Amino acid sequence: MSHPTDDTDGVTLPAAELSSGLSRREVLGLVGAGAAGAVVGAGAAAMAGAALGGGAAQSPDLSYPFYGAHQAGILTPVQDQLHFASFDLTRTANRGAVIELLREWTDAAARLTRGRDVTQAGAVGGPPLAPPDDTGDALDLGPSGLTITFGFGPTLFHDAQGTDRLGIGGRRPAEFEELPLFAFDLIDRASSGGDLCIQACANDPQVAVHAIRNLSRIAFGTARIRWTQLGFGRTSSTTTGQLTPRNLFGFKDGTANIMSENRDAVLEHVWVPETHPQAWLRGGSYLVGRKIQMLIESWDRVSLHEQEHIIGRSKGEGAPLSGGREATTPDFERVSADGEVAIPVDAHVRLAHPVSNAGARMLRRGYNYVNGNNDLGQLDAGLFFLAYQAEPETFITVQRSLARDTLNEYIRHVGSSIWAVPPGAREGEFVGQALFSE
Amino acid sequence: MSHPTDDTDGVTLPAAELSSGLSRREVLGLVGAGAAGAVVGAGAAAMAGAALGGGAAQSPDLSYPFYGAHQAGILTPVQDQLHFASFDLTRTANRGAVIELLREWTDAAARLTRGRDVTQAGAVGGPPLAPPDDTGDALDLGPSGLTITFGFGPTLFHDAQGTDRLGIGGRRPAEFEELPLFAFDLIDRASSGGDLCIQACANDPQVAVHAIRNLSRIAFGTARIRWTQLGFGRTSSTTTGQLTPRNLFGFKDGTANIMSENRDAVLEHVWVPETHPQAWLRGGSYLVGRKIQMLIESWDRVSLHEQEHIIGRSKGEGAPLSGGREATTPDFERVSADGEVAIPVDAHVRLAHPVSNAGARMLRRGYNYVNGNNDLGQLDAGLFFLAYQAEPETFITVQRSLARDTLNEYIRHVGSSIWAVPPGAREGEFVGQALFSE
Repeated sequence: MSHPTDDTDGVTLPAAELSSGLSRREVLGLVGAGAAGAVVGAGAAAMAGAALGGGAAQSPDLSYPFYGAHQAGILTPVQDQLHFASFDLTRTANRGAVIELLREWTDAAARLTRGRDVTQAGAVGGPPLAPPDDTGDALDLGPSGLTITFGFGPTLFHDAQGTDRLGIGGRRPAEFEELPLFAFDLIDRASSGGDLCIQACANDPQVAVHAIRNLSRIAFGTARIRWTQLGFGRTSSTTTGQLTPRNLFGFKDGTANIMSENRDAVLEHVWVPETHPQAWLRGGSYLVGRKIQMLIESWDRVSLHEQEHIIGRSKGEGAPLSGGREATTPDFERVSADGEVAIPVDAHVRLAHPVSNAGARMLRRGYNYVNGNNDLGQLDAGLFFLAYQAEPETFITVQRSLARDTLNEYIRHVGSSIWAVPPGAREGEFVGQALFSE
Repeated sequence: MSHPTDDTDGVTLPAAELSSGLSRREVLGLVGAGAAGAVVGAGAAAMAGAALGGGAAQSPDLSYPFYGAHQAGILTPVQDQLHFASFDLTRTANRGAVIELLREWTDAAARLTRGRDVTQAGAVGGPPLAPPDDTGDALDLGPSGLTITFGFGPTLFHDAQGTDRLGIGGRRPAEFEELPLFAFDLIDRASSGGDLCIQACANDPQVAVHAIRNLSRIAFGTARIRWTQLGFGRTSSTTTGQLTPRNLFGFKDGTANIMSENRDAVLEHVWVPETHPQAWLRGGSYLVGRKIQMLIESWDRVSLHEQEHIIGRSKGEGAPLSGGREATTPDFERVSADGEVAIPVDAHVRLAHPVSNAGARMLRRGYNYVNGNNDLGQLDAGLFFLAYQAEPETFITVQRSLARDTLNEYIRHVGSSIWAVPPGAREGEFVGQALFSE
């Protein structure tokens, strides 16, 4: 079995950049940032639109390239809508079937993200007496900023019985295991984990739903949906041009997020480094998904003062309680007139901050969700937390730090997943190809 | 008890129109169409945006007036997102409490649709030691085209025990009863009916969710949520400037819908007429809500030819199978080369068409929904059908006609509701005030 070469992270390097004298690492950074910022066929209006608050003003023609050094949907400016799906392999799926599925998914994703039907024949171009290849519900809608991001669960490498069905067990990174149980976790296995995942983000919900639906049709016989989650109104901005959105507790979320323009932070905290022993994952990332139910009605009865002291920021401006504006770095040492620290010792912003976690940072890309209501008439709603990081330990460190978070009184983690997200594919390759190379 | 006067439909007539020599009925039509078309603070860009396909390009500043002859959210160009909530009165709610609730709801809706917090104090302007009036999750988002439409269920007039708790039983219109059971109905009572309803539509899902959440907080002690439904990607256009969107079966839906520009059709088919014996409902409408589950995976295995013959239109263009373009009137007599009628006798478009239903027409305003997936990995998805009409009989006639519809093999009606939607309120009035007048 020959090992993948050093450039299996799928970079398609323009000739000009190859000859520019930049280091390979610098070029990777440039291509990454370029891919995230690239806007095809949308023009200045759409770029301006992307800077507005959630939910409006993006052009249906906005399109992000699917192929590249890294998968799209990570550094890409967060879209307004999410449809996320977790898949389990069928009992009969073997290595060849999974490779074929990844190949078909890659081709389909490249088409869908350009606003095309899932195949050439598509919704209406096939034989009349056959079911159409494409379900047709996104005809006329345009790409709408669609990105499709694929991930692999730990169970893809060894199933519940410990069997290495696909012959890839030896390539599982040592650090890639199911997440541990954290304080206050009330995890429902039915909405956690899975062998494969797809994150579809777009500015039109129908486009994201269409993508998951047509990709799951392709999987028929090889994999089937384990669970899905719809999300809306991105809770984190990933570019400096986006206003910081608010979560369902009414607070800005993601102020201190890693911004895609910050090349150094992205290289250090988001991408699996070039030195990683598993070559197939270099230039990829780890995605943590946590379904966090919010006890909305309880929170809504908490005083403004207490809400702000639980979070550690003001509700209106989003400024740290130590003073300044939203972008001001929190001063955790600052003491108020009453002799207490301005940002309480158990405030969310303190416990989640890199300074409390040995510098641990991740790129958050979560969405709000509402799954109807319960029998008491209360909203079944919360945050579908998604975060990309170079190593799982980052999330684990921060989540352990949050054990003392006062916010735990108002939230419940009910879903938990981790995925290894391979790097992007070059045209002609499929996503994850290096994992399955001989 | 004095009866409401002839103008209790809440028209605020501009002086210029009052003196224009138009008949009162004509003026009503103008005001209705004007209110639907009015765009405050958005400008030409937003108007252009409204003509695009679903999900994009509307300005967050788009605002529709709340007060007017008719409630907004009926003729208003269909927004991209829906949050619908049904409420039941609490056991202790009495006439005074319901009047107070409607008064507070009206004031709150007028504020929210202008993009303001639910009260003057709002999310961050109240006393720090009290829970904020507004939950804050829509701060910075703008009105985003929000409309809020209130409706009354039959059970508001007489509860399950037949008791007239609110002293309004005598004002229940004779035709206003729960919908009958139709062929193939599989109705779940838990997602049907209710004493009150609110339809919140906006171009940003977070704005619609924020509206329902804050209105349900106001109801605390008087009414509580019975069921809710999120929807997206409007399935019907209500103005000629909007492209016809597609439902989850991939077909254009709403081609022959009543358009708000069509004054005569709106007057004839949408508004309860000025001659109605119940003065409080004149200028209002009847809203039918049907949760229609779509058997997505079964449909997706049907051939294109069969799909088109079940619907009676082509999938791509949306043209009737009798020929022409999308806007061409179907020719139900036309015979194909094979000697059969071009549009089959059991095609959906034939059975739903006004010519098959003694001219019955309604203004459809439905939304697609996806409520996750079932245990088999199939999408729990479909159409949340909403239609406004001058009398309940319109829907009943058409739905009975659809008993022979081949489409029934691929859909299940699982939720069923009817609401009397009062006319709009003038500033200083509350929605439904005439129903509760002495």
